[in-house]
Amino acid sequence: MISRTDVENATIRIAGHVRSTPVVEVEPDLAGPAGALWLKLEYLQHTGSFKARGAFNRILAAAEVGELPAAGVVAASGGNAGLAVGYAARRLGVPAEVYVPTTAPEVKVAKLRRLGATVVRHGREYAEAYEAATKRTAETGALFCHAYDQPEICAGQGTVGRELLDQLGDLDTVLVAVGGGGLLAGVATALEGVTRAVAVEPESVPTLHAALAAGGPVDVEVSGVAADALGARRVGDIAYDVAVRTGVTSVLVDDTEIVEARRLLWDRYRIVVEHGTAAALAALTAGAYRPARGERVAVLLCGANTDPADLG
Amino acid sequence: MISRTDVENATIRIAGHVRSTPVVEVEPDLAGPAGALWLKLEYLQHTGSFKARGAFNRILAAAEVGELPAAGVVAASGGNAGLAVGYAARRLGVPAEVYVPTTAPEVKVAKLRRLGATVVRHGREYAEAYEAATKRTAETGALFCHAYDQPEICAGQGTVGRELLDQLGDLDTVLVAVGGGGLLAGVATALEGVTRAVAVEPESVPTLHAALAAGGPVDVEVSGVAADALGARRVGDIAYDVAVRTGVTSVLVDDTEIVEARRLLWDRYRIVVEHGTAAALAALTAGAYRPARGERVAVLLCGANTDPADLG
Ligand SMILES: Cc1ncc(COP(=O)(O)O)c(C=O)c1O
Ligand SMILES: Cc1ncc(COP(=O)(O)O)c(C=O)c1O
Repeated sequence: MISRTDVENATIRIAGHVRSTPVVEVEPDLAGPAGALWLKLEYLQHTGSFKARGAFNRILAAAEVGELPAAGVVAASGGNAGLAVGYAARRLGVPAEVYVPTTAPEVKVAKLRRLGATVVRHGREYAEAYEAATKRTAETGALFCHAYDQPEICAGQGTVGRELLDQLGDLDTVLVAVGGGGLLAGVATALEGVTRAVAVEPESVPTLHAALAAGGPVDVEVSGVAADALGARRVGDIAYDVAVRTGVTSVLVDDTEIVEARRLLWDRYRIVVEHGTAAALAALTAGAYRPARGERVAVLLCGANTDPADLG
Repeated sequence: MISRTDVENATIRIAGHVRSTPVVEVEPDLAGPAGALWLKLEYLQHTGSFKARGAFNRILAAAEVGELPAAGVVAASGGNAGLAVGYAARRLGVPAEVYVPTTAPEVKVAKLRRLGATVVRHGREYAEAYEAATKRTAETGALFCHAYDQPEICAGQGTVGRELLDQLGDLDTVLVAVGGGGLLAGVATALEGVTRAVAVEPESVPTLHAALAAGGPVDVEVSGVAADALGARRVGDIAYDVAVRTGVTSVLVDDTEIVEARRLLWDRYRIVVEHGTAAALAALTAGAYRPARGERVAVLLCGANTDPADLG
């Protein structure tokens, strides 16, 4: 479980290491007859996603209490989480090992290597790379950076919610895409008692939806266009607990709606994001979430590690 | 000629009609060992470029003195200027006619039509469409909106410079791409006496460069990757006068440097812009403009009407 204080502390800790990302207001007609709509351009964060916030918070929190091992840090991820850990580690002068499945695309591996990370290819699936990474951590004593289910990771991601409140005080609602739920956990905590966080998930990876229905995290099938970013097999315990505590509801969008929202962002706003990010906007454009009249809504545009070729 | 007061008036006039666009600081290593670097994300403006500023200012200034004809407005442009006039006219409830050459791509024409503009295809080259547009204006009494060489257009574009100063008071230098020079004229005027504007032009369309060398605007050959946005045949009289008055210098970049800067913006910052816009950054990345130690530089990212497919 994490608290608002954890997010406040993270904000102070990572200041100067992460970017404060801008917010733009967009035409209200996108959200229909209702209130006003803002986009939080968090994809302009270092390494192209919010994940840099959690990575810096995890590493700096350990350093603060003298628990940053000489062996450095370890992560398992071929995506945004791995890039973020690689980047934070390089900036902080800490060695990083990132475990990726053997199926990870060469361009992602090359990007990690360019950041100075040691890349270890292991297993055909993410789960196997993850296993190997935790085993390695146990052997070397390195600091493991989970992709979503550690308090420092969640609190770090929450700083984007905190920052958004500083920028737009009187928001009613923030739409947040959910994979393992680290982002949601942090943001819902940052907003608690002030502004509602609404979780958005692909129908094809409904981790939080399934957990809320089952009364606790359960495994789901993983597929669909957003699986590279939102394709966690089950929601994290922290995210589940925060969602229940703060009364977060989850709305679902399908792949067609996600693809359309991603295209609309480019066609209308000249913003390119990945599918996992477009999901949050799709909740509005597809009508899965309908703001009330006068409601002030923000959409977290959380990542842009995508190939823009199909927007041509 | 235009003055700072014209830009101030434009700022007041178009407030509420245009977006205030964000500024982000980026890693200083891009600019080498020197100072700090900011990007002004003006491509997030309505219709994807700064041109909306000039269009609103031109139309609203005419309306203010009761000189907005029932015949509406006319523009000649298959690009950003036409889109901006179409958009501003629609928002203000004014009829718009946009003249484009018969060679204008269907997708651009369709975009103009979706904005409600009447599109007139005329002639094989821009110059012929322009001729027809001015002739039409003389017949109907409509308000002609020039792409760059009218005081209200230049002053409107200048509001982006004014806004940037409000956001970052102690800038030393702003890099501005030049086609016909309307943007430069406005921005250099807005910054006059406070911050230096540096003009950046493609080697293949050096309108201002040639004018400064010749002691007045002269025709140049037009070619290269940025010709769709920066391909004016000669720099405007207003821009030339402002450049001389404020001591603007022009630096040149070649097509390869422009293409590389555009790719770097996507790879490193998840920002997609058109070639004409990337030219301004290319001045830094290619070393055509070298900031001094400690110099604080901003690059105007002024438009994103591009096909992102080649960034894949
Ligand atoms: C761009 C993007 N959005 C959303 C998410 C989901 O984050 P979380 O796993 O914390 O729910 C991720 C995770 O990788 C991501 O990369
Ligand atoms: C994106 C972009 N940048 C720069 C320019 C150049 O503007 P100006 O003609 O005012 O110099 C244009 C003109 O169309 C443009 O569309």
